[in-house]
This record gives sequence, C-alpha cells and structure tokens, in this order.
Amino acid sequence: MATTHELSETHYFETNPPPSTLPEHTALANSFIKLHHSASRPVVLLTSGGTTVPLENQTVRFIDNFSAGTRGATSAEYFLSQGYAVVFLHRQFSLLPFSRHYSHSTNCFLDFLSEWGRIGEDDEGGKDGEQAATPDVVVKARYRQQMLSVLRKYRKAKEQNLLLLLPFTTVTSYLFTLKMLACQMQCLGNEALFYLAAAVSDFFVPPSRMAEHKIQSGDIPSTDGDGSTGGGKKLVVDLDPVPKFLKRLVEQWAPRAMIVSFKLETDPSMLLSKCRQSLDRYSHHLVIGNLLSTRKREVVFVDRKGLEWIRTPELRDGEEEVEIESLIVPAVIRKHQELLQRQRSGDTNRH
Amino acid sequence: MATTHELSETHYFETNPPPSTLPEHTALANSFIKLHHSASRPVVLLTSGGTTVPLENQTVRFIDNFSAGTRGATSAEYFLSQGYAVVFLHRQFSLLPFSRHYSHSTNCFLDFLSEWGRIGEDDEGGKDGEQAATPDVVVKARYRQQMLSVLRKYRKAKEQNLLLLLPFTTVTSYLFTLKMLACQMQCLGNEALFYLAAAVSDFFVPPSRMAEHKIQSGDIPSTDGDGSTGGGKKLVVDLDPVPKFLKRLVEQWAPRAMIVSFKLETDPSMLLSKCRQSLDRYSHHLVIGNLLSTRKREVVFVDRKGLEWIRTPELRDGEEEVEIESLIVPAVIRKHQELLQRQRSGDTNRH
Repeated sequence: MATTHELSETHYFETNPPPSTLPEHTALANSFIKLHHSASRPVVLLTSGGTTVPLENQTVRFIDNFSAGTRGATSAEYFLSQGYAVVFLHRQFSLLPFSRHYSHSTNCFLDFLSEWGRIGEDDEGGKDGEQAATPDVVVKARYRQQMLSVLRKYRKAKEQNLLLLLPFTTVTSYLFTLKMLACQMQCLGNEALFYLAAAVSDFFVPPSRMAEHKIQSGDIPSTDGDGSTGGGKKLVVDLDPVPKFLKRLVEQWAPRAMIVSFKLETDPSMLLSKCRQSLDRYSHHLVIGNLLSTRKREVVFVDRKGLEWIRTPELRDGEEEVEIESLIVPAVIRKHQELLQRQRSGDTNRH
Repeated sequence: MATTHELSETHYFETNPPPSTLPEHTALANSFIKLHHSASRPVVLLTSGGTTVPLENQTVRFIDNFSAGTRGATSAEYFLSQGYAVVFLHRQFSLLPFSRHYSHSTNCFLDFLSEWGRIGEDDEGGKDGEQAATPDVVVKARYRQQMLSVLRKYRKAKEQNLLLLLPFTTVTSYLFTLKMLACQMQCLGNEALFYLAAAVSDFFVPPSRMAEHKIQSGDIPSTDGDGSTGGGKKLVVDLDPVPKFLKRLVEQWAPRAMIVSFKLETDPSMLLSKCRQSLDRYSHHLVIGNLLSTRKREVVFVDRKGLEWIRTPELRDGEEEVEIESLIVPAVIRKHQELLQRQRSGDTNRH
C-alpha cells in the first residue's frame, strides 16, 4: 500500500507540468550515460545552484534560494580531474565549471584581453587575407598561464565528452529532471554517484493557487496614519511543503547508487542534529553539513560511522587559499571507492 | 504637515538598515558626478536588474523579481555612445554593459579562445623570457572583429571614466543608494536623467518580522492522507508594501531632473492603464510600458502628450535582429534634449 509520502510525490508529478526541455535533456542524458557506461567510467550526477518557486504563471516574481553555484561548479572540476564523467544539473546562469574562474567576479573578463597587431596569419590555419588589417585579441601576459591551464582542462572535458551541462530554473523542472536522470543512471548500478549540492526549495505554490498574471501591488491606499504602511496592499504568500523526494530517490529511483546530500544551516547549534536527522530519515550514504558563514572553510561529513570535519589549512603569508572542494571531492570519492570495493567483495550492507 | 506617504517613507529609512557599501558608493558617486559636471556632460542614472527581498536575516531564501538586466545593460551602451556618462546601479551579477555580449549565454566564453604558439614577445611590451615557452591565448579569427569592437568601446568608457558600476542586492540597499545618488546629482540640475529600468519589489518583510535564521521546513508530518501535502509545514510569507519612492524622487530628491520609469506587465489589457496611472500618480516625465512576452520587440512611451509605440522592424532573410534599446535610448535622449531646450528658453513647465 502506498504511504502518504508516496501519494504526495505522485500527486506532485501529476499536478505540476513537466519542463518543456525534458525530452531533449532525456535524449542528451541517454547518450552521455551510455557512452560512459560502455567505457566503465564512474558517473557523478552533480546538482548545483538554487531552485526558484514562481509566484505567478507568467513569472515576474519568484522565491529563490541563495546559491551562486560555487560549491557545485568547483566540485565538478575536481570530479573531472579524478576521472569521473559529470552530469552537471545546474540553475541557469549560475556558475559553471571552468568559466567560473572568470565570471561573477568584479573583474570583467574584458580586462584580461588586449589588442596585439599580428597581421596576416590566421590562428585557425591558413592566410586570412580579408582580416589582415584586424589586430589580434590576446589574453594579457600576466593572465596567460592560468587562462591556458583552465582552457586546456575545459577543452579536454569537451573533446572527450566528459561534462554534460543541463540547466533548470524552477524547483519543478529540477525535480522532473532529477527523476529522469536517476532512472537513466540505473544501468550504472553502484558506479553512479549523486552529489546533491543544489539549494532546493522546501516550499512551492501549487498550480491551482498560482496567479496567472503579475500580482498587482494594489490600488487601495492604506488609511492608517502610523507610518508603518504607506498605501497599497499587503501580500500574503501561502506555500505548501515540497514532498521529500530524497526518500524516493534513495529507495526507488537510484536504489544502487551512492547518494550524498548537503545540508546548509545558519544556526551552528542546529547543524549536526539536522544532518543526523536527514541521514536517519532517508537512509542514504553521506550528509555534508555546512554553515552559510563558514561554508568555504569548513564542512562536516556525517554518515553511519560518525562525523568528520574537513577544514582548509590556515594560510601563511603569501600562500594561496585552498579550495575546500579540493578536499571534499577526493574524500567523497574514497568513500565511493570503498563502497564499490565492499560490494564487489559481497558485503551487501550499503553503509 | 507630513502626509501619510512621507511618514511611511521616513519610517522605511529609519527602520531598515543602510547597506554597508553606502559610504564607499557615496564617495565614488561624488567624484564621478563632479568630474562630469565640470565637463558639462549629461549624466544618466540607469538602474538595472531585480531587487531581492530576504526572508531571513542570515539569508538563505529571498523573493526576487525576474530580470537578467538585459534592458539596462544594453541601454547603457547606447547612452555611452551618445555622449552620456552612466551611473549603472545594478543587481550584483546581472548583465553588465559590454561583457553582456559574452555572458548569460549558452556559449561559454572559453569557446571563443584558442592557443597560438607565438613565442618571446610580450604583448605588454618588452621581452618575456620567463614565459617564452607559454603559447598565447588568442580570440579565434571568426569572433575577433566583434570582440575587438566591444573591447574598444569598453576600454574607452573605462579610460575616460564614463561608466560607474554600483551593485545592489536587496530592495533596501537599492532604495538607500538611489536616494543618495539622486541627492548627489542635484548639482547637475536638468542635465541629470533618471532611467529606472530595475525591477523593484513592491513588497518587503519589515526587520521586526524577519526570521534571524533559515526558516525550517518543519518536522511535523502532515496527517492528512489526500496526497496534497506530504509532511512538513506550510509556509506563509507576510509582506508589507514598499512605500512608493518614485513620488519622493520626483518631488524632493531630484526635482529638476528628467525622470523615466518602466512598467512591466503580463496582461496586455492592463498595460496602458497602469502606465497612465503611474504618470498621474507621480507626475514625472515618461513611463515606458512593456509586456513580459514582447519586451524585446515593442515598448510604449506614455507621457503628457499621449502615447507612442516603438517597435523593432520585421526581419528579412539574413538580417540581424535590431536591439530595441537602439531605438528607445535615442528617443529618450531626444525628449531630454527638448526638455533642456524648453527650460533654457524660459518655459518652466516641466512637461
């Protein structure tokens, strides 16, 4: 018999429309996963960025979750460097692997470029008569080394088809795409890893209650003179909880994969209990907890065995900051490899 | 005697904290405006992108207004090309003038670059012994011409200090900065133009009702079995109307400047009446109305004289799309110049 949870999940998918991109993304995912399955390459589904909750059908206003996508975009690069193929399910216009080094920055990437008057030779081979008078646009010497390193890694990922970029915007399009990908990835068995770094909304406005047009700010001037409101109406937004899809993912969509979720809190006193609660509730493999204020310097791994803090080293003078994802990703991969090892040797206990 | 509106505006600024960036932005604006005032150059304050309304003090969730910043970033380029200095008050990480051509795009800008094995000469002058073995990173020939054109305009704006970029995130930081800028720009008299393209929230959560920490999704499982909710609590967000600051801007902060506001609607039947209502209520110079679905192809200018539609031309085969801002900005500038002309010739009627 279906539980209340299962009913609510089924109801969610039945009453919310699938994203128009779903057929195209399904086809892309299908060939990507087949390719790496046949090459016996491990595949990570990495989710990144915040989901939106539209308040109107023709959306002018929406609720969003804070996330530039730094954790996800940075982690993707480290997974690629460790030989994983990466499905990068990300919020549209959030940070992407590789280009993240030059975007969402106060430095415009145009500041990295300068003109250089080389004439005649085309950089794509052959003479370039028509454009002979056009100077080259080159990356300035002081940025060249780093740009070259990023460009080479980007190219390798692209040429070897190791990175699949799939965008989402709303929480509904995120959930439909996650479900589709999980089902596609079942053929990978326990070689599949889920690294759920996206900031997913816990609340949504059901279609039956969604305004069609932009909600009007109201033309009824307030009559109270206390200065607390100055005309216009108040707005009350009434949201339902999003069903807990992690349970369905663990039990039905991806029963053999390793699943890692993230927990972001702002109150230090709640972090560990929220991580443990999540692990108890969904019985997946690992929760990575982090606080909004310190998330770039420390995280905590919480699993059945206990907990382990991961922190970036204190910097001495002149040392460059260590990206914490360079520590998180290898630690997650070790756990994935241990799991594969245990399962190969016949231990069927998934934790 | 102060009106209810004035009280509510005063109350807003007294009860919401100013952004920490305000002193720095004030100093930057002060020297920028002085520079162009002494050069008798017209200055446009251009606002762009959506404002956020945080739901928590330590913000994980917020309400946002849809806007990538295309209208603002594109318009800024056309104002610069017409000799205006531009204060670009924009949502952090929204599109910026010039770099907009290469961001928020499905093409990663890394796709524009390639390696080229030039050796020895440093593009910044002098020999570059240390990096002699490093290939150059150059823009590919097929993108070179356009990149060069964008780069040159960007450099000109930068070298001549014609573009001041000031970011905001929340509606409160937007309003504090707008007020500061308007007061700073009073010295420009009617040479100042306000082009208010930002999508500003009509609602906010007052500090007294704001949660300190991340709102919890709730641990109380729902007991109803109808499948409509699956555990967790509902969330009700209760928002107050943001006072109508445009009135204060027109009457007190910038009494001599020309003020242009935008009205975005989704329902075609409401567009014109909302534009006229705004003009009646605030008595400023021009409302530019646009519909979410057609905003890149048509807008309507509504002022005291009547209304005028501006539309991009129908494309024939092979023609490139016309940016509608290339039509909007010159039309706004004509109105600004007419106003200056009339005021010089002693006509004190501002419309």
